[in-house]
Amino acid sequence: MDTTHEERPHRKARLWGGIDLGGTKIEAVVVDAAGKVLGRSRQPTPEDGAPGDVVQAMYGALEEAARVAGTLSRHLVGVGVGAPGAVDAGAGTLARVSNVGKGWMEPYPMAGDLADLVRSRVVLGNDVQVAVAAEFRLGAGRPYGSVLGVWWGTGVGGGIVLNGNPWRGRGAAGEVGHMVVKPGGARCGCGRRGCMEAYAGRASLERKARKAVRRGEKTHLFDWMQKRGRTRLTSSVWMRALEEKDVLATRLIDRAVRMLGAGVASAINLLDVDAVILGGGLGTRLGPVYADRIHEAMRPHIFVPERQPPVLVAELGELSGAIGAALLAEPAMK
Amino acid sequence: MDTTHEERPHRKARLWGGIDLGGTKIEAVVVDAAGKVLGRSRQPTPEDGAPGDVVQAMYGALEEAARVAGTLSRHLVGVGVGAPGAVDAGAGTLARVSNVGKGWMEPYPMAGDLADLVRSRVVLGNDVQVAVAAEFRLGAGRPYGSVLGVWWGTGVGGGIVLNGNPWRGRGAAGEVGHMVVKPGGARCGCGRRGCMEAYAGRASLERKARKAVRRGEKTHLFDWMQKRGRTRLTSSVWMRALEEKDVLATRLIDRAVRMLGAGVASAINLLDVDAVILGGGLGTRLGPVYADRIHEAMRPHIFVPERQPPVLVAELGELSGAIGAALLAEPAMK
Repeated sequence: MDTTHEERPHRKARLWGGIDLGGTKIEAVVVDAAGKVLGRSRQPTPEDGAPGDVVQAMYGALEEAARVAGTLSRHLVGVGVGAPGAVDAGAGTLARVSNVGKGWMEPYPMAGDLADLVRSRVVLGNDVQVAVAAEFRLGAGRPYGSVLGVWWGTGVGGGIVLNGNPWRGRGAAGEVGHMVVKPGGARCGCGRRGCMEAYAGRASLERKARKAVRRGEKTHLFDWMQKRGRTRLTSSVWMRALEEKDVLATRLIDRAVRMLGAGVASAINLLDVDAVILGGGLGTRLGPVYADRIHEAMRPHIFVPERQPPVLVAELGELSGAIGAALLAEPAMK
Repeated sequence: MDTTHEERPHRKARLWGGIDLGGTKIEAVVVDAAGKVLGRSRQPTPEDGAPGDVVQAMYGALEEAARVAGTLSRHLVGVGVGAPGAVDAGAGTLARVSNVGKGWMEPYPMAGDLADLVRSRVVLGNDVQVAVAAEFRLGAGRPYGSVLGVWWGTGVGGGIVLNGNPWRGRGAAGEVGHMVVKPGGARCGCGRRGCMEAYAGRASLERKARKAVRRGEKTHLFDWMQKRGRTRLTSSVWMRALEEKDVLATRLIDRAVRMLGAGVASAINLLDVDAVILGGGLGTRLGPVYADRIHEAMRPHIFVPERQPPVLVAELGELSGAIGAALLAEPAMK
């Protein structure tokens, strides 16, 4: 009896787990009711692994984060997962995953599988939506009631918070990157034409840069890439190229900023939220200077010109996804 | 005492008033708790009148609608007004009104002025937002939880309902017509460039048609206009021209449909609502055939292709604004 009583405060510590499932890494955190990170852990995403392997790796990362926080994953009140692809939160399934493990198209029961291992409640959410929710509660969005998050990275994702609540629509709301900024325009990674992401996403920018090089255009982008031992034009490669005033990089990023300005302004004219939060690899790397440039590019399109919403850079950095996932498991967490 | 008791059921009938303030006419209704119209009245908007004259005319229309409903405006539980321009619902003011009476820029205390006359509570709202709310509760939007209204008329307005509640943002949400469909594109009536309204709004369409005629292009649009004794290309003139396969009209409307497709699809990719309701003069006049055409134009841009939202024509017709205004006065009304 006494032992049981001794254990209770520990089991009742009310901690939550959050997992950010990415294409290259799995980030796990354990947070308290204030969203404070008490433990974290990072694991590589299993390359060419089946969904079951991915779930095992997520469990491993979470157990480790829990250990750092002085607990066990089964004592967590709940666990949230932010994942790329098509999330069905009600069913707890994840489908149409292209760059995690082997990738899979059919809905996989990720929440149930992970819950069996963790022995706690598991909730799934969209990776960008949960990161935006974290910025809203604990980061750049704190002063506001309603925000639009624009996650500028490989693609351009987004998330919406309205009057304090995430707006998910039928599950896929916030796809700001697939707003059309030029009907019949550039081909997008999604297969459509003229999406904002086709001009601003890092994958599209790289495609355009490689095409320009094949056409004989000069750039140091790929030299800096190789110097860093990378095979892709990372955000830091772009950053370097812009600092060095590389002509091609500057032209491509200028166009990206112009199209982000048009697309994000369109979103503001529709939603009229209080602020825009700029996140993602490129967004956070390029930082406030580019947030201001996007703001300037939005200005000519904003319908109520005296109420320009601020464009702020995300503050939580690489943990925003994992923290946001934990918030998902306890929506009342402040 | 007995008299008082006799009067009570009458005074407690719980009726609401709604006024739709337009550039040419003021439409007033008195409705019951189910939104059923028990009385209606229409008055011309005072031409070149000051705001005070406009308020008097609104009061006159409401009194008449109340009389038809067998009551007096001072017995109404509340009165809503749907108005064009910049509404500050909290302050009860209307500013930046361009085509009502003389027009005015500074905030005018319309709610207070009208309340003094009506001796009932008066609430102001945006004309398109309230019309969309009416369609949501009582019209084409009834089966859905969340809708986007696209009001295709002189301009292109819009309104958003999310989980049953109007989303107004900081007051100006829903400006779907000022989403950018072509950065640096056609000049819009709002002074900006590339807005959807610059390609689809009836005023823009007319400007383009007049320009084409000056360039020597052939069209019967203006013949039909004159035959109807109009000085503007009304929705019915456009309808006639399309039926007669007028080449210029067909080309301009085809482009409008294409741009509406891109812009509304962008809005869906951002909001992921259940359905689109097409209203406004052109939208309701051109009807289901054009709702389907807009839907087809949206299709290539919709990010989740297996979840195309239906595009439905508004059902409440010319009373949607007034009924929506009445709903504004009693948000719990079903």
